[in-house]
Formats: sequence, structure tokens, C-alpha cells
Amino acid sequence: MISVGVVGGSGYTGGELIRLLLAHPMVELTAVTSRTLAGSPVCETFQNLRGATDLVFAPVDVESLRRCDLVFFATPNGVAMELVPELLAAGIKVVDLAADFRLKDPAVWQQWYGMPHACPELLDEAIYGLPEVNRAAIPSARLVAAPGCYPTAVTLGLLPVIEAGLAVHGPLIADSKSGVSGAGRNASVDLLFGEVTESFHAYKVFAHRHHPEILQTLATISGRTHELVFVPHLVPMLRGIHATLYLQIDETEQAIRQLYEQRYRDESFVDFLPAGAHPRTRNVRGSNLNQIAVHQQGNQLIVLSVIDNLVKGAAGQAVQCMNLMSGFDESAGLAAVAQLP
Amino acid sequence: MISVGVVGGSGYTGGELIRLLLAHPMVELTAVTSRTLAGSPVCETFQNLRGATDLVFAPVDVESLRRCDLVFFATPNGVAMELVPELLAAGIKVVDLAADFRLKDPAVWQQWYGMPHACPELLDEAIYGLPEVNRAAIPSARLVAAPGCYPTAVTLGLLPVIEAGLAVHGPLIADSKSGVSGAGRNASVDLLFGEVTESFHAYKVFAHRHHPEILQTLATISGRTHELVFVPHLVPMLRGIHATLYLQIDETEQAIRQLYEQRYRDESFVDFLPAGAHPRTRNVRGSNLNQIAVHQQGNQLIVLSVIDNLVKGAAGQAVQCMNLMSGFDESAGLAAVAQLP
Amino acid sequence: MISVGVVGGSGYTGGELIRLLLAHPMVELTAVTSRTLAGSPVCETFQNLRGATDLVFAPVDVESLRRCDLVFFATPNGVAMELVPELLAAGIKVVDLAADFRLKDPAVWQQWYGMPHACPELLDEAIYGLPEVNRAAIPSARLVAAPGCYPTAVTLGLLPVIEAGLAVHGPLIADSKSGVSGAGRNASVDLLFGEVTESFHAYKVFAHRHHPEILQTLATISGRTHELVFVPHLVPMLRGIHATLYLQIDETEQAIRQLYEQRYRDESFVDFLPAGAHPRTRNVRGSNLNQIAVHQQGNQLIVLSVIDNLVKGAAGQAVQCMNLMSGFDESAGLAAVAQLP
Amino acid sequence: MISVGVVGGSGYTGGELIRLLLAHPMVELTAVTSRTLAGSPVCETFQNLRGATDLVFAPVDVESLRRCDLVFFATPNGVAMELVPELLAAGIKVVDLAADFRLKDPAVWQQWYGMPHACPELLDEAIYGLPEVNRAAIPSARLVAAPGCYPTAVTLGLLPVIEAGLAVHGPLIADSKSGVSGAGRNASVDLLFGEVTESFHAYKVFAHRHHPEILQTLATISGRTHELVFVPHLVPMLRGIHATLYLQIDETEQAIRQLYEQRYRDESFVDFLPAGAHPRTRNVRGSNLNQIAVHQQGNQLIVLSVIDNLVKGAAGQAVQCMNLMSGFDESAGLAAVAQLP
Repeated sequence: MISVGVVGGSGYTGGELIRLLLAHPMVELTAVTSRTLAGSPVCETFQNLRGATDLVFAPVDVESLRRCDLVFFATPNGVAMELVPELLAAGIKVVDLAADFRLKDPAVWQQWYGMPHACPELLDEAIYGLPEVNRAAIPSARLVAAPGCYPTAVTLGLLPVIEAGLAVHGPLIADSKSGVSGAGRNASVDLLFGEVTESFHAYKVFAHRHHPEILQTLATISGRTHELVFVPHLVPMLRGIHATLYLQIDETEQAIRQLYEQRYRDESFVDFLPAGAHPRTRNVRGSNLNQIAVHQQGNQLIVLSVIDNLVKGAAGQAVQCMNLMSGFDESAGLAAVAQLP
Repeated sequence: MISVGVVGGSGYTGGELIRLLLAHPMVELTAVTSRTLAGSPVCETFQNLRGATDLVFAPVDVESLRRCDLVFFATPNGVAMELVPELLAAGIKVVDLAADFRLKDPAVWQQWYGMPHACPELLDEAIYGLPEVNRAAIPSARLVAAPGCYPTAVTLGLLPVIEAGLAVHGPLIADSKSGVSGAGRNASVDLLFGEVTESFHAYKVFAHRHHPEILQTLATISGRTHELVFVPHLVPMLRGIHATLYLQIDETEQAIRQLYEQRYRDESFVDFLPAGAHPRTRNVRGSNLNQIAVHQQGNQLIVLSVIDNLVKGAAGQAVQCMNLMSGFDESAGLAAVAQLP
Repeated sequence: MISVGVVGGSGYTGGELIRLLLAHPMVELTAVTSRTLAGSPVCETFQNLRGATDLVFAPVDVESLRRCDLVFFATPNGVAMELVPELLAAGIKVVDLAADFRLKDPAVWQQWYGMPHACPELLDEAIYGLPEVNRAAIPSARLVAAPGCYPTAVTLGLLPVIEAGLAVHGPLIADSKSGVSGAGRNASVDLLFGEVTESFHAYKVFAHRHHPEILQTLATISGRTHELVFVPHLVPMLRGIHATLYLQIDETEQAIRQLYEQRYRDESFVDFLPAGAHPRTRNVRGSNLNQIAVHQQGNQLIVLSVIDNLVKGAAGQAVQCMNLMSGFDESAGLAAVAQLP
Repeated sequence: MISVGVVGGSGYTGGELIRLLLAHPMVELTAVTSRTLAGSPVCETFQNLRGATDLVFAPVDVESLRRCDLVFFATPNGVAMELVPELLAAGIKVVDLAADFRLKDPAVWQQWYGMPHACPELLDEAIYGLPEVNRAAIPSARLVAAPGCYPTAVTLGLLPVIEAGLAVHGPLIADSKSGVSGAGRNASVDLLFGEVTESFHAYKVFAHRHHPEILQTLATISGRTHELVFVPHLVPMLRGIHATLYLQIDETEQAIRQLYEQRYRDESFVDFLPAGAHPRTRNVRGSNLNQIAVHQQGNQLIVLSVIDNLVKGAAGQAVQCMNLMSGFDESAGLAAVAQLP
């Protein structure tokens, strides 16, 4: 049993994290902080939690978190890096769900996030929290950077091919689609129901911050540089990411299927689908699962990879990391399946 | 052909008004103003209008509107009353789509809208722009107050009964449901896709500003005071109002059906449906039509009344008033039917 | 630990029941039957259940259910009554989620469901499975008729007033709104995305089968006949019922609030909200909770009551009944809160 | 003024065609047929058309269409080819919105549509009704095959590059997303609101019938064979197609922008957007417009192309062809812009 805190608990990722932690058998959630909501009950903001918690939002300071063994940051980019050094110094482990500790190179961070990094000395220590890639390193980490939602869906979709070092001809193309909750719970005209529903569009072509993150992870895995074309799109739905990945390869479909099957046979949270399958984002809504299917014709490989952006793409994966960091069963608190419909 | 301006053209009502006016055969739209968007092309905000207009948002001042014969206000409540006196003095007619000139009693206005009225001397002159009720008075009006969306659906649903002075036992109950566009295009967490979709709820029970407006209209029609229970609800859809009205009456269903049929036989924009019908909001989406059905059992009468909140509930009705004020055919520019699906 | 079967497991209610039972700590789900899908894996139809179950749909016959201690029917109306006598004779308990055993009078059943009842001799024995009303009778029942979704939301919203025998003037009005999953998973043009989304409408005014069910329950509670006006509406969302209830009463708001607070203080699955609250259906999506709020002005009482139609309105309530019938904690397997957003 | 008929008027494409034709200034819609609905008023099925037409569905036979100058087929694939020869023989022009006359090779047709072609002798004569490609040939055609919805969005997105014969390295990738109305108005579980909303998925990877159609058109334009990877996806919305096209080219972004600008400068229904734009499907909802944007980095070109699948992707384009075949202004009856929101 560990004591856990959540910094920045008023957004969609924070709310999902609170929901998962309250149901976790090995966790006591002892602090949830919010700059804007300090003093008000958590269940006023998240009315699904009435009866499930009496917690009141605390101010965002180290004092509120002193009792915690581990703290999650579900804050906007740039907040965690201001507080993390002090928490680590106090012996508190950290899982950051924002981007602060994902990129290894502070110059790249500054280029994409528009501010200098506050504690570049921690970037090397931070472990990228994708258990399917870094399962060995996460248990002993003090600081874990949970991956972005798109990077999770794209990286797990490509992982077997990249790890196997298969020659890929031409760029990797990652046509990616996300539900609206991925953009957070901010008062913005662009996220209004009236702007989003009954429409579909691409955004930030060549300019999305998850691009360097995916590239860095792929390079770490394969030891070489990859060419990636990444186009995000907004889908009029709450949750879900669907990555459609296009690769030109030399192997047969049978070889590729075997590669994926072997790679993911023992992964609790990756479900490689039978031939011919087309995963739907709803299959994994609210669950920590990643469903993957492959289709091939000649040397054209198409990988379909779906996750829930708030669970496997954020809060669920962060809990999975916490489980590993705390010696719990990796699946503890993450057994729920999706609700249909 | 008249020259027309729109003040406050950056919201959903303003956008709908611009769309209707650009297609109107007797109108030249010469000015659209916006406090926040002055200087930017209208079609950057409303990308459906690319190619349809080269207008640029003008600043909100009388100068921008000097050339107009008639000006619409699609502004937040409290803005029109600051500018209208000057416009009227300049010989420019006004149709206000906000609430500034709907209530006759400035004290009631102040109570519900939280500010003193800037030109109470105009309240008597202002004509309530519900053509089915005030068709005689609108043509000669200088200043028309277009009704709210809920009041339009509720009032037209009740009109034949109220006009006929039928005894109604107990309160009139107006259980009303609106699509999200009725709340406008404001950056507000409550209107986010993530907050609104896949949910349904009542709001402002006993506290909605359309309550006194409906009561005033009913009293004007019948010459007596009515008791009304009005509960608005938010539906996860873009457009549409569905009012479900409950009345206890003494007449037979046959008598009621005849009453509605006769009352609405010559109305272009009210479609009284055959027995057994259940109108759907989509039937009138994008159109200026009001579909009404009645169901009766014993002395319980149920009226179902649907409109598009942005058209018959706002911009379309305002154009209908403009047509009357300008000597045009009342239906000019309002012939489009709903798109299905 | 008991062995449980589900008859008619291919619809939305069946799928939700399977999901809840697979996660239930005291249940082994040993049989799921389907007329049309016999022989195919359950997780092909419900792809959210991949990895969670290896069950294959069995044919619909008593043989498939012989091992079960308790069997749920999630079949169309009229199916359960053909099989239930044989199951009871074999010592197997039954919870029917269809309407077969809800109405006490076989003539009323035939009138509303269009067929003679196959085993009218069981109607008296069947217990109406609303634990908040029948908690004493359910534990010893062999046959439980789980309530309809609308009746659950309406009855629990009215219960304190009806039980207290408060004088209500005029009819009880239940303006009710349901998500689309309440209509089931049948290939019907009326339920297509293209017909349902972005629209709202009433249906079956004065003609819905839940009308006699609600009336019967209210009469059982109060010992007298009530007058009820019940209008169902379809909301373009997956799950959720919102009942808006209108009553004319003599008591003060304070008295009414105390009545509801006391009545529901010890109910695990009814959450009576603070003054001024407007419950949203999403607050209880996927959970077995019923949130209720009251608003009053003069003698006009408005009750807002929300449930998830597939959980508290169907599968969850059936599990709650099973818990009572099996001596389990009433909340076993029903602890999950709603996901937001 | 011409007399026009619609065969198969009960689906979404048929309904949209009826809506457009009723508002067309040069058309009298004299017959709408339906196998299943013969004898019932059109406005009972399409309740948006109440008051706009008194037409009654006629049986599907040549007799019903004898008076027409031109007949549209909005029927399932394989129906038009049975009736078209007789209509042409009677001097009636035909625009087929189904696939019967799109593919030139009857063997390819049989392979993809699973039945022998009934009148292969007409395949050569049939003109592919994409005015931006075939404007010269359409006016004199007796038989026009209106393109599929995906092929319209993809082909117009690629057209300038293909016409210019630019070298494209590697396959053309067309990641395509469609609203649900593209699948028609058929009673199918897969199209239920409960199955489609709040989810996103790819379907028919390597197996969609629009694949050979796009390939044929590209080959006709360039005179050579292209390699195309086409993946369709279903978006939980009513209308709209978004094609995201990936090409590897040698030209500069500036050259590509000029190419698109020149090619589409005089096209009424193609709107080439300024640099940096991300078109939204809602911009063209209900309109006949195709909005296209290009983004380039190095030699990676990304084209974003959006249409309304029921208008420019079906009924609107068919009317555009009719206009050309009848000597009308090409834009007649097609001026409406999209409604926002």
C-alpha cells in the first residue's frame, strides 16, 4: 500500500487518474492539487466521483504532497519541471504525464515547447514510461516520463518492425486520429461542441509536438534515425486514438504476423488481432489495452493501432508505470474492460 | 433592395444571419461588425462563407453602419441598448436578436438581466418580433425585438389555446430541450465537446431568463396572467429545440385539432402535423419552419413543438421580421428546407 | 461463488450483463446463449471482451443452462416465459430483464404486449426487482422481474412522495428522455446513426409499455390509483435516462428535501443531491447509481432523476437482485463509477 | 426547364437529390420511384420535405419515367444496368449515381461487384461524371456515371499532380475518412447509432470497391498505371469525406502551390486554400464544394481534400452533370453554402 498524490487534478487526464487510483487495491490517494480549484471538493468537479472520495483540492505546493510515496503530474507542460527536483530530493517518486521529461535534448525541448528547461540535469535520469519498451528500467526509476497519447499508439504499432531492424523503404507514415479529450479541458472556442461535432479535420501538419517524441523513441529502439510523416486529425468523439501506419517492407505477411504475435504474446496490454481484423477505438474505451491489426499486400504493410488516449495514452499507462516502480503486479487496478456501447 | 448591417457577427446567431442575408434576393449585406475580430475577413471565422463574401469585420460603431437601411444586433444582452437610440435617430431600422427590447417593464429587465436598462423609453415602442402574433404591427416598426428561441417554440405551441381563451387547469408545463448552439460560441468549459456530448441534463430550473419573456407574451395575447413551469434541458446536438407542453383542458381532441388547423392554415412557417405525428428536430434543421403536433387523452393535452433555434428561433425569424418591415414577401430568402440526414 | 447463465446474450443488455458478471467476485459465468450466434465466440460480438472470456454462445435450451444456479434472461419480450417454468422446476433461480413477469395481470400483459401469457400462474410469485422497494422480498424469490429502464428512473424519483402518501394535485407528469441503447441492438432503420444523431423527438406518446408498469408499482406502494402522464423521448447519445418529474404538492421544499434525504440515506445506489443541483446523465454512465435532485417553487415540485439505462435500468439492477438472492453484499460487483468524460 | 425523375428515391442519396432538384430553377421533378415505398408520399419518408412536394413514390418501371427528359438512378449497384438501355432507347438521358457504369472493363466490374454486367455494350459510351476532368465530354453524353464519394475527394486532391505528370516516388497513399451517411440508409446492425457513435475504425483495407475506380480515373488522366494504397475509415458524423493524401515528389512547395492554384482557379466547386490551412469537413457540409489544402516538407507532399459525400460526392455532382448535359449554368441549383455550426 502506498500513498499517492496527483498534481493538476482538474483536467481530463487528472480526473481519469483519480478514478483509476481510487479503485486501485494497493493505493491510497491522499492528495489532489489544483491551482484554480484549491479548497473545493474533487467530486464537485468530477460528479462521477460523488460518494467515491471526500478529497478536497489542495494548493499546488510541496507541502501538500509531503506524505506521498509517489506523485503524478497531470499539469500543463512546464509545470512539473519546477517542482520535481524538490520532490525527488524529498524521496518522493514522480510520474509526469506532461511532456517535461520526455525529450532527452533540452534544446529540442525548448524548440518545441517554447521555453528553456528548468532542470535539464534530470533529463538523462528520467525513464520514458512505455513499459513494453522500458520494462527493465522503470522499476528502479525515481522519475518516469509517461509517453504522449499519439506516441503510444504509433510506437507500439511500429515496435516489432523497428526492433527487428527490418528495412523500411521510404518514410514511415503515421496518419493518426484522436478523440477530443486528448486536447484537454480548457475553455477554448476550438474545443466547443459547436466547433467539433459533425466535423473532421487534420491539424498541425508537420508541426505537432509528438513528432520529435516518436522519432526519439524509434531511434532509441533501433539505434538509427528514422524518417516519419505524422499527421494528427480530430475525430468528433470523446476518447480514442486510431493510428493508421503505412510501411514499405520486404518481408511476407506471414513473417510480419509471426513477428507481431511473438513480440506481443506476453504483453498484458497489447492485443494483436487475428488476420483481417479492423480494431475499433470503442473496443478499448476506458481500458488500458492497445489493439493492433496488420494488413499487407505485396510489400505494403498497414498497421492499425487503437488505444484510449486517456488510459493507455495517459493515466492508465502512468498507473502501469507506478505498478512497476512499486513492485505491484503490472496490471493492478487496470483490469477493467471497455463498456459497449 | 436594401442595405443591411449585422452588429456582433462572430457568434453562431451572427453567422447564421450572415448566411441567410448573403442568399437573400432583396438584401445587400454591407457591414458586419465585431469588437474582437475587426479587420479580419468574415470568411476566416466562417469558413463555409469562403467565396460567398469578401466582407471584413468592421469595428462596432455607428459609423460602420451609416449606409444601412436596417441593422441587426446579434450581440450579447446589453449591447444593443447602447447603440440603438443613435441608429434610430439616424433613420436606421433595427432588429435586435438579443433580449434588450423584449421585456416591457424595465424593472423586470433589470431583475433578470442584472443591469439597468439604458433606454427604457424605447421599450414601449419596440415590437415583439413574432410574426404569427404581431404581423400587423411589425411592418411599421422602427425597432423589433426578435423573440428568444425557447419562447418561440413554446409560444407557438400554446398560441391557439391561449388565443382562444380556453380554460387551462393547473400550470402550463413547458419541458423544453435545446441543442448546444443556443448557448452561443463562447469559450466556456461548460460548452466543451468533452462536457456536453454523450450527456443530457436540465439547467436553470426556475431561473431561466426566457421565463418572464414567455409569460409576458402569453399575457399580452390572452389579457390575463398565466402560470407557467418552464424547465430547459441541454441536448447533445448542434441545433434544434423540442418543447413538450402539458395542458389540462376541457375540449375534445377533435376540437383542439380543428383549432390548431385553422389557426395555422395560412402560416407559411408553422406546419401543423397530422394526428399521431411526433416531429423530430432534424425535420426543421436549417429551416425557418415550426412543426407542431398534438396528442390528447381525456383532458390531458400534449403539444410537441420543434424549431431550429438558430433559424426560426433567431436569425430566420429576424429575417422574417425584416421582410415585413421592408415590404418584401414574408418568406423571401427563407425557402430552404432542412437537409436530411 | 455461484454458477450463472445469460440467455439472449447478443444485445446491449446482454453484453452489459456479461461485462458485469465477468468482473463479479462471487460469480462464475458458465453459459451465454444466443439463438442467432450459437457456436461463435462471445468476444467476436463484443470485442471489448477479447481476453476477458473464452465463452462461446450456446444454443438457447435448458440443457445449456443445467449447471447454473441462476439464469438471467436478456431476451426479447415473450421468450423468457416459455423457458422459465422448466428452469424453476430444475431448481434454477431466474432474473428476467424483459417484461414477461413485470405485470401482475395477464390481461394487461396481453393488452400491451400483444400475446397471451404462457405461464400466468407464475405472475403472482414473481418479485418486481426494484431493491429500493422490494428489498425484503427479493432474497427468498425464485423468480425476479427486473424493472424497465424508464420505470426505474421514474419510480425512484417519485418514491419518497408516493410512500409518504403525500397528496398530489393533478396528474404526475414524467417527461422522460433516453439514450439510444435503450432501444436495443436490432437492425432497424429508425435506430441508424443517420436517423438518430443530431435530432431529438418524442415517441409513443400515450402508448409506451412502461406506462402500465409504472402505474402498477406506484399503486402497489401507495395502495391507491395514480394518474400518470408519461412521455418518452430519444436523445442522440448512447446511454442514460433523464426523468423530469412534475408534481403539485402541499409540503414545503424543506419538508420534501428531508423526506428524500431520509428515504435515501442508506441506499447504496441512490444519491440524493444538494439543493440547486442538476444531475447529468454522464455522472452515472456505466455505474449502477441513480442521482436525484429536487427543485421547488410554491407548490410546484420538480424532480430530476438520472440513471444509466443499461446498468441501474437493466443489467446492474439485475445483478443487484442476484446479490440479494444469493446472500452476497448487495453492492458486490457494482462498485465502478462513471468515466468522465 | 426539363422534366426529371429519380429512381430509388428512398435512400440518403435519393433524398438529397430530391432536395436539390426541388430547389433547382430549371427543373421540374416529375417522378420519384421506390420499390418498397411505392404509393406513399415522399414527404412521409423525408419529413423535411413536408410542404415542398406532393410527390408520391411511383413503382420502379419505365412507365413511371416516360415523361422525363432525364432520369437519375440512386439505386443499389446492379439496378440501373437493368433499366438504362430501355430509357436510352426512349430518348431519355441518364445519370447513374451507383457504380454500374463507372468501370470500363466488365470483367473488373464483375470481380468487384460480384455479378455479370447486364449491358457491357454501354460501358464505353458512359461518361465518368467528374466535370473537373470530363467537362468537354459530359454535355453531349446520353449516359453519365457519377463518381463515387471517395473517388471524388481523392481524385480532385491528386488531379493537378497527376495531370502534370509529375514523378511520384512510391505509392500514392490515400488515407480516407467518411461520415456514416456514405453507407446508405439500410437496416444493418453495423450502422446503428449504438455501433457507430463514439468510435472510429478502418474498414475494407485493400478491399474497397472504390479502389479500382480511382485507379482507372488516374490512369485515364495520365495515360499510365499508378500504384495506390487506399484505406477508408468510418467517422462518427453524418456527412463529410476527408482524404489525407501522401505523395513523394521532386517539386518545391511553391511550384506545387502554383500548380494547384492555376488548375483550380476557374473551377466553381474546387476551393484551393491558402498556405497553412486545414480544411474541415463542416466547411462544405450540404454544399457542392471541394476544399483542398497542401502542405509540404522536403519532398513529402500532403494534400487535404474535403467534400460532402452526399453532395459533391453524389447528388450535387450528379446535378452538376445534369446542368452540363442540359445546357444550364453549371452551378444552377448548387449555390447553397454550408450551415455552421
